[in-house]
Amino acid sequence: MSPAIKGNSGLERLRQIESSRLFQGIVIGIIILSALTIGAKTYELPPLAEQALSAMDWGITLFFLVEILFRFAACPNKKRFLMDGWNLFDTLVVIGSLIPLDNSDAVLLGRLLRVFRVLRLVSVVPELRFLINSLLKAIPRMGYIALLMFIIFYIYAAMGALFFASVDEELWGDVAIAMLTLFRVATFEDWTDVMYATMDQYPLSWIYFLTFIFLTAFVFLNMMIGAILEVMSEEQNAEQAQKAHDERDNIIQQLHAVQEKLDKLTHQIERSDGKS
Amino acid sequence: MSPAIKGNSGLERLRQIESSRLFQGIVIGIIILSALTIGAKTYELPPLAEQALSAMDWGITLFFLVEILFRFAACPNKKRFLMDGWNLFDTLVVIGSLIPLDNSDAVLLGRLLRVFRVLRLVSVVPELRFLINSLLKAIPRMGYIALLMFIIFYIYAAMGALFFASVDEELWGDVAIAMLTLFRVATFEDWTDVMYATMDQYPLSWIYFLTFIFLTAFVFLNMMIGAILEVMSEEQNAEQAQKAHDERDNIIQQLHAVQEKLDKLTHQIERSDGKS
Amino acid sequence: MSPAIKGNSGLERLRQIESSRLFQGIVIGIIILSALTIGAKTYELPPLAEQALSAMDWGITLFFLVEILFRFAACPNKKRFLMDGWNLFDTLVVIGSLIPLDNSDAVLLGRLLRVFRVLRLVSVVPELRFLINSLLKAIPRMGYIALLMFIIFYIYAAMGALFFASVDEELWGDVAIAMLTLFRVATFEDWTDVMYATMDQYPLSWIYFLTFIFLTAFVFLNMMIGAILEVMSEEQNAEQAQKAHDERDNIIQQLHAVQEKLDKLTHQIERSDGKS
Amino acid sequence: MSPAIKGNSGLERLRQIESSRLFQGIVIGIIILSALTIGAKTYELPPLAEQALSAMDWGITLFFLVEILFRFAACPNKKRFLMDGWNLFDTLVVIGSLIPLDNSDAVLLGRLLRVFRVLRLVSVVPELRFLINSLLKAIPRMGYIALLMFIIFYIYAAMGALFFASVDEELWGDVAIAMLTLFRVATFEDWTDVMYATMDQYPLSWIYFLTFIFLTAFVFLNMMIGAILEVMSEEQNAEQAQKAHDERDNIIQQLHAVQEKLDKLTHQIERSDGKS
Repeated sequence: MSPAIKGNSGLERLRQIESSRLFQGIVIGIIILSALTIGAKTYELPPLAEQALSAMDWGITLFFLVEILFRFAACPNKKRFLMDGWNLFDTLVVIGSLIPLDNSDAVLLGRLLRVFRVLRLVSVVPELRFLINSLLKAIPRMGYIALLMFIIFYIYAAMGALFFASVDEELWGDVAIAMLTLFRVATFEDWTDVMYATMDQYPLSWIYFLTFIFLTAFVFLNMMIGAILEVMSEEQNAEQAQKAHDERDNIIQQLHAVQEKLDKLTHQIERSDGKS
Repeated sequence: MSPAIKGNSGLERLRQIESSRLFQGIVIGIIILSALTIGAKTYELPPLAEQALSAMDWGITLFFLVEILFRFAACPNKKRFLMDGWNLFDTLVVIGSLIPLDNSDAVLLGRLLRVFRVLRLVSVVPELRFLINSLLKAIPRMGYIALLMFIIFYIYAAMGALFFASVDEELWGDVAIAMLTLFRVATFEDWTDVMYATMDQYPLSWIYFLTFIFLTAFVFLNMMIGAILEVMSEEQNAEQAQKAHDERDNIIQQLHAVQEKLDKLTHQIERSDGKS
Repeated sequence: MSPAIKGNSGLERLRQIESSRLFQGIVIGIIILSALTIGAKTYELPPLAEQALSAMDWGITLFFLVEILFRFAACPNKKRFLMDGWNLFDTLVVIGSLIPLDNSDAVLLGRLLRVFRVLRLVSVVPELRFLINSLLKAIPRMGYIALLMFIIFYIYAAMGALFFASVDEELWGDVAIAMLTLFRVATFEDWTDVMYATMDQYPLSWIYFLTFIFLTAFVFLNMMIGAILEVMSEEQNAEQAQKAHDERDNIIQQLHAVQEKLDKLTHQIERSDGKS
Repeated sequence: MSPAIKGNSGLERLRQIESSRLFQGIVIGIIILSALTIGAKTYELPPLAEQALSAMDWGITLFFLVEILFRFAACPNKKRFLMDGWNLFDTLVVIGSLIPLDNSDAVLLGRLLRVFRVLRLVSVVPELRFLINSLLKAIPRMGYIALLMFIIFYIYAAMGALFFASVDEELWGDVAIAMLTLFRVATFEDWTDVMYATMDQYPLSWIYFLTFIFLTAFVFLNMMIGAILEVMSEEQNAEQAQKAHDERDNIIQQLHAVQEKLDKLTHQIERSDGKS
C-alpha cells in the first residue's frame, strides 16, 4: 500500500470520527461545561473552588486546542478550512485563550475571550448555524431601511441638540447624546419625562416628539416586518409556483402527445385517401 | 340477556350521559363556581361566609371526585384514560384536594391546588383544549430560536457580571441576576436607568446595551413572528395546493381519455384501410 | 294620480335628498361642529362664549332630531330602520340629549351623551362603518383566545393574592386588584418594581413573573396575530382559488369539446366504413 | 452643424456627466460632509474650528447651488423639473441657506434649514427615494384607520377632560392635554401612575383606561398590520396569479390547436367519404 493511499484512508478515518455522534456530543458537552465555568466565576467562591475552576479552565482550553487541530487535520481542503468564518472564529477564540495574562486589564480581556467560547455552541450545532446564517442573509435587505432610520435619527438629533441643549445638557448636549435620548424615546422609555421637561421651555415641542415617534416606532417597524415577510413569502411562493409549474408542464407534454397522434392520423388518412 | 351485553349497554348509557349537553354544562358550571370560590377567599369575609365557602369547597371537591370516577367508568378503554394528559391532570388536582391539610404551609399548598382547578375549564371545553394543543405544537419549532436567545442572554449576562458587578451588585451581582436585569432591558423596563448608571463608570457601555437590544428585541421578535407565519402559511398552502392538484389530476385524466379515443380511432382507420 | 303613488314618489324624493352629497356633507359638518363644541367646553371660557356654546349645543341637538326624523321618513322599511344598530345608536344619543338636566350629576351624564355624538361620525361615514363592522366580525374568532387569556390572568391573580397580599395590599389585596396589577405587568409598565418588591420576601417569585410574561405577552400576542392573519389570507386565498378554478373549468370544458369532436369523428368513420 | 443640434449634444453631455457614478459619488460625499458639519456644530469647539466650519458651510451651500443649477441645465424638460417634489425640496433648502441671517431667531431657522440638507441624501440615493415613495403610497390606505383612531382618542380625551380635570390639571386640563396624556397611556408610558391617581377619586376609572388600551393598543395595531399585509400580499398574489394565468393561456392555446386539427381532419374524412 502506497503512503498516499494510507494517508488518505487515515484522513477518511479522522473524518468518520469527527462526524460521529459521540465526538459531536463530547464537544457540545465541553462547551456547555465551559459556559458553566464562566458563569460560576461570577459568583463569590471559596479559594479551593476558584483553583478547581482555574484548573478546569486550562483543561477546557487544551481540549479546544486539540479539537481544532483535529478538525483541521480531518479537513481534506486545508485552505477552505481557514476561509470558513466559523472555523476562523473558533481558532481565534482558542488562540486568544492561550495567551498568558498577567496585569489586570489583560485578565478582563482574557475573561471576555472565554465568554465568547459560549458562542462556539452556535458554530458546532448545525441548526443554530443555519439560524444565524438566515439572520445574516436578512441584513442587506434591511440595509436601506436602517440607513433611512439613521438619517431620521440624525436629523431629529441635530434639531434636538440645536433647540433643547439649554433644557438638559445630559439629554441633548450634542448630536451623539441626543441620538441616544431619541433611541430611548423610540423605545417609549420614560419618554414623557423627556418631553414634559422640554415642553416647559418650548410648549410646542410635543410636535417634535410625536412626529418622531410616529415616524420611527410605527411606520418603520411596519416596514421592517414587511421586509421580513417579503423574504419569507418569496421563498414559499417560489416553491409552490415551481410545483404548480411542473404539473402544468405535464399537461402541456400530454397535449403535445395528442397533437402528434392527430398529425399521424391525418397523414394516415391522407395516405389511405391517396390509395383508394 | 347475558351480563356482558348488559354491562356493555350500561357503559353505552354512561357514555351517553357523559357526552350529553346537560352533563357538560353542569361540570362547566361547577368549575366556574369553584373559580369564584377561590376568588372570594382572597377578600376579607365575615366568619359565616368563610364557613359557607369551606362547605362549598368540600362539596365541589366531592363533585369533582364523583365526576372523574364517572368519566373513568364511562371510558371503554381504561388504560387510554390514564395515558391522556388532561385526565391525569384532572385526577391529580382532585386527589390533591382530598388530602387533609393541617399546618399552615400545607394549607397554602392546598389552596394552590384549588387554584389549579380553574385550569380544568381548559380540559373540559374542547375549543380551549384545541388552542392549548396548537400552542404546545408550536414549541419545538421555536426551540432553537429560544436556545439561541438563551446563548445571547448568557453571553451578555456573563459580560455584564464581569464588568458591571462593581457598579451595582443588585443588578449585575452574578450571571443569574444579570440575566434577570437583561430580561428587564429587553422589555424596555426602565432600561435607561440601568444604562446611565453603568455609563457613569464605563462611558462606552451604551454599545453593550444598544447591541443587546438590537439583537434581542428587534431581530429575534421578527424571527419568532416568522416562525409562526411559516407554520400557518404552510398549512394553508398545503390545503390550497392539494385542491389545485386535484383539479389538475382531473385535467390529466381527461387528456388520457382523449389519447385513448385517438388510439382507438387510429386502429379503426388502419383496419378500414386494410379492409378497403 | 292616486295618493299611494304620490306618497311613494315623495318617499323617492326624500331618499334622493338623503343620499345626496350635499346632505351627507352638511350632516358630517354638523357632527364635526358638535365635536368641536364638546372640545371647546373643556377649556375655561368667558361667560359670553359659554352662552354661545350652549345655544349652539341646542341648535345641534335640534338639527340631529330633525335629521333622524327625516332619515326615518325617507326609509321605505320602518321596521328595518329600528332594527339597524347604527340607527338605534343615533336615536338613543339624540333622545338622550333632549332630556332636560338640572342637578349636577345629570349634567355630567348629559355631557357624556354629547361626547358620544362624535361617534355618530362613524355611523355616517360608510368607510368607518365598514372598519367597525370588520372589527366586530373578528371578535368571535378571538373569543376563545380571550377566554384562555382570562383563565391565565385569573389563576395567576388568585396565586398572587394568595402569596403576595402580605407584600403589598394595594397591588395584591384581592383577586380583582391582582388582575389589574398583572395587566400592568403584561404591558411591561414598571413591572420590575412589582417583582423586586415581592422578591424581597419570596426570592423565587421571579419565576411567577417570568412565566406569566412569557405566557401572556409573547405566546398570546402571537396567537392573536395568527388569528387575524388567518382571516385575511382565508379571504384572499378564496378569491385567488376561485379565479384559478374558473380558468381550470375553461380548460376542462375545452377538453370535453375535443372529446365530443373525437366521438363525432369516430361515428363518421364507422358510418363511412359501413358504407364502403 | 446647426446651433440647435450643438445645444442638444451639449445637453446630452451634461446628462452624461450628471448620471455618471463619479458625479453622484461627489454629491453624496458633500451631503455627508454637510451632515457631519451640522453634527460638529452641536459640540463645543475652539474658535478656529468654528471659523473653519463656517467657511466649509459656505462652501457646501455654494456647491449645492452649483449642483442644482447644473441639474436644472441638464434636465431636458424644465417644467417637469420644477414639478418634481424632490427637486422642489432641494431648491428650497439651497435657496433658504443663501439668505443672510443676522438676528438670533433667524440664525436658529438658518441652522434648521441646514439640518434638512441631510434629507437631500434621500432625494439623491434612488433606493431611499423608492422607500419613501412606497411609504407615502401606504398613507391613504391607513387614512380611515387613522381617522377612527383620532375619533376614539377625541372621545376618550373629552371624557377624560370632563371627569378627571379636577384630579390633575396638568394631565386632564383640556381636550388637547388629555389627548397627549392618552397617547402616553397608549404607549404604556407610566400609564399606571396616571390610572392610580384617577382611581383615588373615581375607583371605577380603571374601566376607562383598560377599554381605551384594548381599543387602541391591541385592536388597532392589529388593523394597521392587517392593512400593510393586505398591500403586500395583493402585489405578490397579482404577480403570481399573472404567471399562473400565462401558463394556463398556453394550455388553452394548445387545446385550440388540437380542436383546429380535429376540425381539419373531420373535413378531410368528409371529403374522402364524398369522393369514395
